[in-house]
Amino acid sequence: MKDKTETHIEFLYLRISGVIEHQILTNILRYGDKLPSLRTICREYGVSQNTALKAYYHLESKLLIETRPQSGYYVRYSSHRIPAIPKVTNPAATAKTGDSDQLISIVYNSLGEDGCLPLSLGTPANELLPIAKLNKGLLLAARELKGSGVAYDKVEGNVRLRRQIARWSFAMEYQFSHEDLITTNGCLNALSYCMMALTEKGDTVAMESPVSFGMLQLAQVLGLKVLELPTHPQTGVDLNALEDALRKEKLKLCLFISNFSNPLGSCMPDAHKKEAVRLIEKYNIPLIENDLNADVYFGKHRPKSCKTYDECGLVLWCGSVSKTLAPGYRVGWVAPGKFKERILRMKLYHAISSTAVTQEVIASFLETGRYESHLRKLRQTLHFNYLKYAQTIADYFPEGTKASRPQGGFVLWVELPRHINTIQLYEKALKQKISFAPGRIFTLQNQFDNCMRLNYGLVWNEKLECSLQLLGNLAKAERGQQYP
Amino acid sequence: MKDKTETHIEFLYLRISGVIEHQILTNILRYGDKLPSLRTICREYGVSQNTALKAYYHLESKLLIETRPQSGYYVRYSSHRIPAIPKVTNPAATAKTGDSDQLISIVYNSLGEDGCLPLSLGTPANELLPIAKLNKGLLLAARELKGSGVAYDKVEGNVRLRRQIARWSFAMEYQFSHEDLITTNGCLNALSYCMMALTEKGDTVAMESPVSFGMLQLAQVLGLKVLELPTHPQTGVDLNALEDALRKEKLKLCLFISNFSNPLGSCMPDAHKKEAVRLIEKYNIPLIENDLNADVYFGKHRPKSCKTYDECGLVLWCGSVSKTLAPGYRVGWVAPGKFKERILRMKLYHAISSTAVTQEVIASFLETGRYESHLRKLRQTLHFNYLKYAQTIADYFPEGTKASRPQGGFVLWVELPRHINTIQLYEKALKQKISFAPGRIFTLQNQFDNCMRLNYGLVWNEKLECSLQLLGNLAKAERGQQYP
Repeated sequence: MKDKTETHIEFLYLRISGVIEHQILTNILRYGDKLPSLRTICREYGVSQNTALKAYYHLESKLLIETRPQSGYYVRYSSHRIPAIPKVTNPAATAKTGDSDQLISIVYNSLGEDGCLPLSLGTPANELLPIAKLNKGLLLAARELKGSGVAYDKVEGNVRLRRQIARWSFAMEYQFSHEDLITTNGCLNALSYCMMALTEKGDTVAMESPVSFGMLQLAQVLGLKVLELPTHPQTGVDLNALEDALRKEKLKLCLFISNFSNPLGSCMPDAHKKEAVRLIEKYNIPLIENDLNADVYFGKHRPKSCKTYDECGLVLWCGSVSKTLAPGYRVGWVAPGKFKERILRMKLYHAISSTAVTQEVIASFLETGRYESHLRKLRQTLHFNYLKYAQTIADYFPEGTKASRPQGGFVLWVELPRHINTIQLYEKALKQKISFAPGRIFTLQNQFDNCMRLNYGLVWNEKLECSLQLLGNLAKAERGQQYP
Repeated sequence: MKDKTETHIEFLYLRISGVIEHQILTNILRYGDKLPSLRTICREYGVSQNTALKAYYHLESKLLIETRPQSGYYVRYSSHRIPAIPKVTNPAATAKTGDSDQLISIVYNSLGEDGCLPLSLGTPANELLPIAKLNKGLLLAARELKGSGVAYDKVEGNVRLRRQIARWSFAMEYQFSHEDLITTNGCLNALSYCMMALTEKGDTVAMESPVSFGMLQLAQVLGLKVLELPTHPQTGVDLNALEDALRKEKLKLCLFISNFSNPLGSCMPDAHKKEAVRLIEKYNIPLIENDLNADVYFGKHRPKSCKTYDECGLVLWCGSVSKTLAPGYRVGWVAPGKFKERILRMKLYHAISSTAVTQEVIASFLETGRYESHLRKLRQTLHFNYLKYAQTIADYFPEGTKASRPQGGFVLWVELPRHINTIQLYEKALKQKISFAPGRIFTLQNQFDNCMRLNYGLVWNEKLECSLQLLGNLAKAERGQQYP
């Protein structure tokens, strides 16, 4: 009974906050408008004071409204106060091999420095992770696992973990069995096995532009050419460009981050995912789907994946807990569709098996619901942070600055006015102990000089706020080369 | 003071047992001879009863002598009771690509079956590993490690672990610094990074014949040709053959297990190691040294490594604790000499970093001396087991059976009379719940049909003894095809 009642209350406060959110977003309620009192809400909706309060708390946490002492609740959100969205990217339609390593090294070596604010990272800060609970899990795993995880694990990986991922996959409306899954040492390692199994040196692979630099580096070390596809900051890869590429280029495979991509934060709508899968099936080209961020959504549900629409086994669905739970555990996985045997051999030949004990900890986290309860908090924190970032950018960054509007994940793509070179800005920021990721590391082409990726998976506090403001001021102070 | 005295006593009992051992091995004392009484030993050497007893215990543990109740100590070892050594292997001098996968799958899928005796394994049984202490280490590591190992580790790997391996490397008389080392997910993963960094599809690599099948499979998946070199069961790779290959073939690299090779158990003498390094330097060909077994020696000291003689940085020295401590932890390493940057990039691009917490456990095992104290027991157990195996083979296997005489490691190479086909024998053995590794999986050529590899890293008990005897009887019953 209790459960049912609670669900009912949840539903009510969310319905109320949903109505008000809609009014704010459509400008029916405007910046500065006073909201109905709690008593009015109670009367209008026939709910308890508690439910009304919860609805307003929820809107506050999304930075849509604010309380003013002794006065009441007011709208604080204004669509004018968040930055505009960048346009669809426009990379050259030629596949490239290249080397952006030097810049990447500079950026990531700076991270070791004490006191440097790591806006350049693409992972959540330790403070956002349930470390104490993971430690307990480690204890338990050592006790429960046969041989305490000292012996080799199966090549396929921990069965309990694979069962849990299979169960979890219901959320994307694609039903795996544990036998469809292979565990790996993190998500990049899953991508590595897929790429090694499906490509040879000189092959061309298509990715979203800007591209996650880890994926660029992997392609580079395997001697692959990368075709960067035009990508919309909100809806992801441009489907016309994708079809063009499939038709004209000799693609070996596609590699997309369909949900909350890195660095854009884009999320392909369901219809796009469906169409993308239809296209790769038509041209019989495998799609590696890097789906490691999907659990950190800001909306009501986990978005589906391309894998949801995969009927031919052409989608190799990769994931991990590195962005949500424990990067250092190196626990990832792949559902390789019809390529399972090839991926299994890759893992066996290159590493025999994965670390047994950390897989067991994650399995138990998924099984007991600790993962979901951690995610609930994490999502809220990240959404809050994103909104804070967006407003700070609107208020402190140079006029004309655009920013992507991720609906999940950890990262934000910022497009500064064209005269600002973010590599030069990076050097100045670093002197102020601020590290961000310059746009140029996300491409093999001559573009994104005025862009940067910011990580909002940090603890929002005064220091972070001041640093962001300072970064904006540094950008404003840039005169840069004048472009025609 | 206490330490000094103890060292003195250690030295005395070892000196006494050494003298008697020498007399037995040189046939001055013969099978069945009665040994001097403990009292005589005390008088002759001027030692305490305790020291005399220790000397005899030591000889007993090496199966050289035995007590007969109410009678005294007798010589039980006879060189006639251990099998002869196989000749130097004689593979064809042509590099091959190939696929021995099917047979390997059959052999290793059988391991999951309940109650099957895993003589086919190349790792120690769980019962020989210090599981309780490792679990304690896990607890401690989670407590002591910054962020409990939840955050990404450095690409190079855990500093504390690398410092300990550097310290450990003194035993091979080659002094690393932690900066010369990169940690990996086990030793095979280290080999994988080295091979990927230094070869391209179609290249030729030289290995000892018979070849560890993991190394064969890795070469295969990378599209490499394998040149199998003649190898002596005791002294390892034939240096003339190596020089020939270096001169005549377009080798890209060599890959040797210099100490207690798999499957032969051979150990290159220091002079051979030095010469091998001189040769690869002369021809400027890198040597990947798979040195994962060296800590499990039966002699007095850890043997040196080829790396000991490496002055040009051409030797990539690989190791792990997978064969001695915790296979499922996936903790290995490589000292890649002058190729460090390339290997580091491989690790970064394919896996970002290694599991943090298991590295920390191993670091503390090395630091506190728990590793060395575990190894001392493990070495004794394995030496005892090897001797038991050798005698059982001499007593129960078909006449003419030869066996290698490893001075360390876990595996033994058995050469049965030529008419016995070990693939056929394997099927019969499996019906009796005995699994061994048939010779054919250690080569891409048409050889070793009458050979097998046996794992003695198991718990010696009646069941194991009976199974070995049964295996011998099954071999005796084989009629096989008659060869000309």
